[in-house]
Amino acid sequence: MQTIKKYVEANTQRFLDELVELLRFPSVSADPKYKGDVQKAAEYVAQKLRDAGADNVEICPTAGHPIVYGEKIIDPAKPTVLVYGHYDVQPPDPLELWETPPFEPTIRDGKIFARGACDDKGQFYMHVKAFELMQATDTLACNIKFMIEGEEEVGSDNLGIFVKANKQRLAADVVLISDTAMISLETPSLETGLRGLSYLEVEVTGPNRDLHSGVYGGAVANPITILAKMIASLHDENNHITIPGFYDDVVELDAAEREALNAAPFDESEYKSDLGIKALWGEKGYTTIERTGIRPTLELNGIWGGYIGEGAKTVLPSKAQAKISMRLVPNQDSDKITKLFTDHFKRIAPEYISVKVTPHHGGQPAVTPTDSTAYRAAEKAIEEAFGKKPIPTRGGGSIPIVSLFENELGLKTVLMGFGLDSDNLHSPNEKYDIANYLKGIETIPLFHKYFAELSQQ
Amino acid sequence: MQTIKKYVEANTQRFLDELVELLRFPSVSADPKYKGDVQKAAEYVAQKLRDAGADNVEICPTAGHPIVYGEKIIDPAKPTVLVYGHYDVQPPDPLELWETPPFEPTIRDGKIFARGACDDKGQFYMHVKAFELMQATDTLACNIKFMIEGEEEVGSDNLGIFVKANKQRLAADVVLISDTAMISLETPSLETGLRGLSYLEVEVTGPNRDLHSGVYGGAVANPITILAKMIASLHDENNHITIPGFYDDVVELDAAEREALNAAPFDESEYKSDLGIKALWGEKGYTTIERTGIRPTLELNGIWGGYIGEGAKTVLPSKAQAKISMRLVPNQDSDKITKLFTDHFKRIAPEYISVKVTPHHGGQPAVTPTDSTAYRAAEKAIEEAFGKKPIPTRGGGSIPIVSLFENELGLKTVLMGFGLDSDNLHSPNEKYDIANYLKGIETIPLFHKYFAELSQQ
Repeated sequence: MQTIKKYVEANTQRFLDELVELLRFPSVSADPKYKGDVQKAAEYVAQKLRDAGADNVEICPTAGHPIVYGEKIIDPAKPTVLVYGHYDVQPPDPLELWETPPFEPTIRDGKIFARGACDDKGQFYMHVKAFELMQATDTLACNIKFMIEGEEEVGSDNLGIFVKANKQRLAADVVLISDTAMISLETPSLETGLRGLSYLEVEVTGPNRDLHSGVYGGAVANPITILAKMIASLHDENNHITIPGFYDDVVELDAAEREALNAAPFDESEYKSDLGIKALWGEKGYTTIERTGIRPTLELNGIWGGYIGEGAKTVLPSKAQAKISMRLVPNQDSDKITKLFTDHFKRIAPEYISVKVTPHHGGQPAVTPTDSTAYRAAEKAIEEAFGKKPIPTRGGGSIPIVSLFENELGLKTVLMGFGLDSDNLHSPNEKYDIANYLKGIETIPLFHKYFAELSQQ
Repeated sequence: MQTIKKYVEANTQRFLDELVELLRFPSVSADPKYKGDVQKAAEYVAQKLRDAGADNVEICPTAGHPIVYGEKIIDPAKPTVLVYGHYDVQPPDPLELWETPPFEPTIRDGKIFARGACDDKGQFYMHVKAFELMQATDTLACNIKFMIEGEEEVGSDNLGIFVKANKQRLAADVVLISDTAMISLETPSLETGLRGLSYLEVEVTGPNRDLHSGVYGGAVANPITILAKMIASLHDENNHITIPGFYDDVVELDAAEREALNAAPFDESEYKSDLGIKALWGEKGYTTIERTGIRPTLELNGIWGGYIGEGAKTVLPSKAQAKISMRLVPNQDSDKITKLFTDHFKRIAPEYISVKVTPHHGGQPAVTPTDSTAYRAAEKAIEEAFGKKPIPTRGGGSIPIVSLFENELGLKTVLMGFGLDSDNLHSPNEKYDIANYLKGIETIPLFHKYFAELSQQ
C-alpha cells in the first residue's frame, strides 16, 4: 500500500493532466458530426495503453466506432482480469446550462468538470494509470486485458459482434468495470446488480400536414394532446406501469433482502434538497432505494412536437414524438418488454391518429454474485484502501454489456465504481472528484493483488 | 364591371409580379433575426401605395415593427373605408416540408406557393391593386385609408397604441379586411364571426438539473410525464374542456341558428381524405362546422422537453414546456379565460413539480352584423362578381383587432376574405390561388361602389 501511495503522490499532476487531455475530445458517439473526434479519442487511449506498457495494442474497427484493445500477459498460469470501459460520452446538451464548456475540462473545488469526467473517461482511465503503476513498480499480479469501446452511450451495437468474434483473445477469469457509483468516500459501496434497458421512440401522426389551429382546431385530433393522453395512461394512480404483463417476470425480493438493501444510509431531506424538489415520487409500496434499484421504471427522456421556437405560432401540428426508456430488473427480458410496450402503445392508439414505435437499443438486467472470488477481492481491496468494508448496493443504471460478457464469455463482472450519484452523469456540469479518481487508482492494484491471491487458494 | 374586368385582364401579369416581389421578403415578425426584412417589406408596401396614388403615405414606427399608413380623400362628404391588413408572416418551420422554399414564390397549377401567399400578403395586396384600378379608371367611390401592420402574427401588441393615438386620422365608416377564407369560388361566403384567442406558454420544472434516468428514474417525478398528465386532464372523455368556468360566458346558438350554420356545404369524407385522417375528433354534441366556428377550443401548439436530438439519451429532464392556445367565442373574454387557465393549471400541478404560466397574447371574439350597410354592400359586390349570393359563415380563426376597432374607433368590420381553408395557412406549402387573387381585385371596387350607394340611401 505504501508503494502504491508513493507512486500516486509522485504522479498526481500528470495523472490529472492526462485525464484532462482525454476529456478534451468531444467523443459524442450519438452524433455523426463527432465521428472524427471519437476516432481521435480512441487513438489517444491506444497510445496511453502503449505508453503504460501494454502489448498488442490495436484500434479495432467496427461498423460504428472502434474498440481499443491492449493486453499484458505476464504468466498464462496467473488469473486474467478483463477491464472494460468506454471512451465515448453522452451529448452535452443543453449547452447553455454548463458553467464551463463541456469539452474544456475545468478544475473547481477539487473536482474536474467536463462531459465524460465520471462517465466513463475518468473511471476507465484509472485502470490505465493503475496498470502503469503496477508495471512501473513491478507489482502486476494478474494478466490484464483492456477492451475500451466507443459506443456504450448508443447501445454498444457492435460490441457483441466483436466479443463473439474474439472469444479467444478476450478469455479471462473476471470482467472488471468502473462505470458506476459508490455512496461516498466515507461509505464505500459495491454494486451487485444493474437494471436492464428498453429504449424506444414513438411518433404519433394526426393530419398529413401542419394545420392552422383556428381553422381546424376542435375538429381534428391534435397529436400532442393524443400523445399526452397516451403517455399519461402509462402510469396508474399508484405510479405502477400499466402495460399488461410488464411485471410478470420481475423477481420480488424477500423481506430480509429488502431490509438489507434499505440499510444503506439515505437521507431523504438531503436528497430532496440536492435536487430542489418538494416531494418524492414513485411506485406505491416501495422506498426510494427500492424504486431506483430493484423496481422497473418507465421514463420519458424527450418529447417534441409543433412550434417550439420563440413567440407564438397557432399551429395544430401533424406529428408529436417522444423518447421513452424502461429500466428492467431480474428476470425481465429487454426484447420481451420492448415488444410488450410496442403492442400496448399501438393498442391504446385512438383511431384519430397513427402510431409508429421504433426500438432504439436495449440491455438485459444483471445481478453479480457476492460470494465469488472476484467480489471478495474487490471487497478486500476497498476495505484496505478506504479502511471500511463496502456496502453491497443495487444500481439503478444499466450496463447492458454485463449480460453479454456472461452469455458470450462465461464471465462474471465486478462493478467497482468510484463515481458519486451527484456527479451529474448525462447532465450539464458532469464532474468527477479528484479524490475519487486518485482513490480509484490506489484501489485497483489492490484488487489485482487480492484476486491473484484468492484465486490460488 | 366591364371596366374592372378589362383593367384586371390588361394588368394580370404585373399584379402577379408585384405580389411575387412582396412575397420574397421573409417578414417573419416572431423572429428578431428577420427585423431588417420586416422593415424592407414595410417599405415595399409604402412604395406601392404611393405608386397607386395614395397620399400621406407613412411608415409609422412602433415599439415593434412599423405600421404602413396611406390614404386618398376624394370628398369628405363621401363614406370612408379603412382597409386593414398585415405584411408580416408566420415562421416557415418546418422548412423541410416545403416543396419549394417559402420565400422563393413559385407558381404551380395556377397557385402561388410562398409563406404569406394567402395570409395575408396576397389578400391585403388585392386592396392595393383594387385601389390602383379605381384611381386609374377614375371610379373611386369612397374615401380610402390603408393601415397595414407588421405584428399580426405576434399578437398586434403595438397596434392598439397606434389606433388610440390616431383616432382622428383613422376616422372611417367601416373597416374592410381580407384575411379570412371563403368556401370556394363556386360557393362564395362571408365570415360573420371570428373566434378570440388566449395564447399561453407553460413550463413544468421538476429537479433543478437534468438527471440520469437510471440513477434517479422511478424516484423523482419526470416533468414530461407530469406535463403529459396535466395536458391529458384538460379535455374530458367527451372532449369538453375541464377548466372550471371555461364555458360560463359562451353564447349558445338556438336551433334555427345552428341549422342555418350547418346548411353550408360540408363533405366529411372529402375533409378527412384531404387531411389523411381516418376519424374526426371533437366536442361531443357538435358538428365539425360548429366545432370550428361557434365552440371554443383548447389546442396544444407545441411541446418540448428532454433530449430531442438523434439517437438515445437516458435523461430525466429538469423541465418540460408547452405552448397552448384557446379559441374563444362570444361572449368569452380573453383576459378572463387566460386567468381561468392559469389558476386551473397551477391548481392541478402536483407537489412534485413547480409550474410557470406565461401569457403570450390574446384577442376577443367578435361577431359582425349581417344587417349593416357594409355587410349588404359586400353581399352585393360578391353577388355581382361571383354570380351568387354569399353564404354567411362563422370563422374558426382569430383577428383580435376586430374588437379593437370596435372599441377604439366605434367601427364595425366586414370580413371579405378570398382565401380557401386548403391554403395551408401557418403550414408548409402555403398557397393562394391566382383565380382567387384576381377575383378579389375585381370584387373590391364593387364593394366601394355599393357601399357609397347604400350609404346615401
